[in-house]
Amino acid sequence: MKSEIIAVGSEMLTPFRQDTNSLYVTEKLNSIGVAVAFKTIVGDRQKDLVSAIRTALGRVDILVLMGGLGPTEDDLTREAVAEALSLTLRRDATQVAALHARAATWRIAMPQNNLKQADVLEGATLLPNPNGSAPGQWLDTTFGGYRKLIALVPGPPHECRPLFDAECLPRIRAVAPPRAIAVRTLKAAMIPESQADKLLAPVYSAYSDIETTLLAHAGDLQITLICAKPDAEAARQRVDELAEGLEEILEDWLYSSEGDSLEQIVLYYLGLRQATLAVAESCTGGLVAQRITSVPGASRAFLGGAVVYSDALKTSLAGVPAALIAKHGAVSAEVAKALAEGIRARTGASVGLGITGIAGPTGATESKPVGLVHIAVCDPQGCDVLERTFRGDRQRIREWAAQQALDMVRRRLM
Amino acid sequence: MKSEIIAVGSEMLTPFRQDTNSLYVTEKLNSIGVAVAFKTIVGDRQKDLVSAIRTALGRVDILVLMGGLGPTEDDLTREAVAEALSLTLRRDATQVAALHARAATWRIAMPQNNLKQADVLEGATLLPNPNGSAPGQWLDTTFGGYRKLIALVPGPPHECRPLFDAECLPRIRAVAPPRAIAVRTLKAAMIPESQADKLLAPVYSAYSDIETTLLAHAGDLQITLICAKPDAEAARQRVDELAEGLEEILEDWLYSSEGDSLEQIVLYYLGLRQATLAVAESCTGGLVAQRITSVPGASRAFLGGAVVYSDALKTSLAGVPAALIAKHGAVSAEVAKALAEGIRARTGASVGLGITGIAGPTGATESKPVGLVHIAVCDPQGCDVLERTFRGDRQRIREWAAQQALDMVRRRLM
Repeated sequence: MKSEIIAVGSEMLTPFRQDTNSLYVTEKLNSIGVAVAFKTIVGDRQKDLVSAIRTALGRVDILVLMGGLGPTEDDLTREAVAEALSLTLRRDATQVAALHARAATWRIAMPQNNLKQADVLEGATLLPNPNGSAPGQWLDTTFGGYRKLIALVPGPPHECRPLFDAECLPRIRAVAPPRAIAVRTLKAAMIPESQADKLLAPVYSAYSDIETTLLAHAGDLQITLICAKPDAEAARQRVDELAEGLEEILEDWLYSSEGDSLEQIVLYYLGLRQATLAVAESCTGGLVAQRITSVPGASRAFLGGAVVYSDALKTSLAGVPAALIAKHGAVSAEVAKALAEGIRARTGASVGLGITGIAGPTGATESKPVGLVHIAVCDPQGCDVLERTFRGDRQRIREWAAQQALDMVRRRLM
Repeated sequence: MKSEIIAVGSEMLTPFRQDTNSLYVTEKLNSIGVAVAFKTIVGDRQKDLVSAIRTALGRVDILVLMGGLGPTEDDLTREAVAEALSLTLRRDATQVAALHARAATWRIAMPQNNLKQADVLEGATLLPNPNGSAPGQWLDTTFGGYRKLIALVPGPPHECRPLFDAECLPRIRAVAPPRAIAVRTLKAAMIPESQADKLLAPVYSAYSDIETTLLAHAGDLQITLICAKPDAEAARQRVDELAEGLEEILEDWLYSSEGDSLEQIVLYYLGLRQATLAVAESCTGGLVAQRITSVPGASRAFLGGAVVYSDALKTSLAGVPAALIAKHGAVSAEVAKALAEGIRARTGASVGLGITGIAGPTGATESKPVGLVHIAVCDPQGCDVLERTFRGDRQRIREWAAQQALDMVRRRLM
């Protein structure tokens, strides 16, 4: 069965805001074997909305409309579905009472306009919305002689998502042909982008029953395998078989077979080794610390560190000898190593990480280009030191450097 | 004139990847007074693509197709436009030669499939693509008796965006009615979300000729005003007039009238006061340092700081007396102040910032809930200390705390 998602709202046709609910709803639809064939974004104009709804009903079986259910004049989704399907709207007395009760709780006078939210499409079921005033609606109907399922769900993510899960997904599952979906997500770090697909494509393209998606960003590669089959065990086996083949190629670029983030894996290895980590960051300016501390429970193995943007702080907070900076320059292998060793000594961490580089756009010298980064990881057994030159703008260079640094810690702990 | 953007690619119908080119193209179209009425995302299936193209040509004047111009079997945009408009495709000899030359430079044998990229739609103009092998195409044609402008541009952002700017925008501008667009972006920090629209709507809704967009995220409010008029001066005057009215309401919540980020403004004020900043972060774990150092040239006023996740580091790196932590707990106003003062003393910065809190999901006690954050900003004249309890998950609490902290630094410097 094919589906379409229509996101309703003029703000999503500006350069400033993007629909994100559809990613969530897509994942949920895929999980019950329903593919999304089209996504449409349309503004708050009834004529445009009617056109989008009719087009969708002409090409898919399941239509999810997100947004346009609120109380304002701009909220036209109910009216547009009514027009597109020549249905009447009736005002539901129970719903009117509920809206009055809600307004009373909030001790506010209810504007007359609010009652729009009690308008129900002919033949539709109201879907309770515990997180907002506008209920969803569910319509099991026909269009052009074919059965069509239509879900109207509110736009705000904290209303849309739970309502879709609780009310829409079970209703679609009951109608969609039973299919089991197996999903695996592999993650790899710092594999050269030009090599990844060249190495992996010959393997995954032999699995035409598995949808393989590669997503690469600043040294992080996510490979998602999705297989839908009537039989759950068969789907799982196929996905596991392909995952094994890809893992073999990825070798130690692979850091997770279960979709974990690199920072989660670093914390996992730290726990396994009963080790602790501290960082001294210059060009990444707190990016590594921020990634690690985004993981709940990071405090068990991550002590903290220093953001040593100025040379003076490299000395005062991370114990890098001023003479070393004067001799080799702040961006050098020697200073990276001194940062890693210094922050270890200062904090008592078992593993120290030091990063220094030129994120740009300024700061380059004749011998040291923008993008040059030195990274060192030290533990009681010694140090790994790496020099890389990353390309891109300031943001990209910082992201690459942080990724490379975390990957070096992972490899050191492995 | 109304336009539609069609993003082509099955990967954008998965939960993992989203079209982002359309935000860029929308901004450019808006800048010459062309509104985007629909966005459609469609997979790599010719039938679906033809349906999407015909639908678009039935409802808009300008169609921008992004993606599907590469050499693989999945690249079907050329074929789909040909089918939708009953046009022939002819293989362009010059383009074939260019593809061969390109392959020769790279010293690779050219697969036969590559020649698809030399297929030109009947009546189309080829648009040079300096960043890739597939040229764009421009079609000035009719559909259903109406004039239609159709642009085919490649999908990769670094090919799509420069090609759209250089080749498509001037061609659309030449046809679109001359309109000048005035844009202003106001930014405000920590204004309560429930108040923002209630305060601002009565003012901006009186300007029906200005499109006002409010975008709020974790204590950051962006207000964009767009006004299109035949006369440039008139458009600018209207936007400035509304901006002035909104600025009056926003008072000192407003931190920029020109779209700068909060971290840019903090660095601006630091420069103005010839002051320097150092930070000691616990629950935000480097997020504040990372935001500040994302601005090019941050090193002029930002010295660095400490990420003091463990209590021991609060003492060793930021000089917080262990007895103070023992007495008041790590999450307390006293420790926030000691962090700010300690990092000032350790680094010699004129302004010190200290943040301590409970980002969750664990770590709460009976008297200290998840979301509780203490923040202190100290300079030679004294300290500002604030206690807030933020709601949301770990990520949201950290983002709110970082925003609040930067805003306190701004207000201290004002």
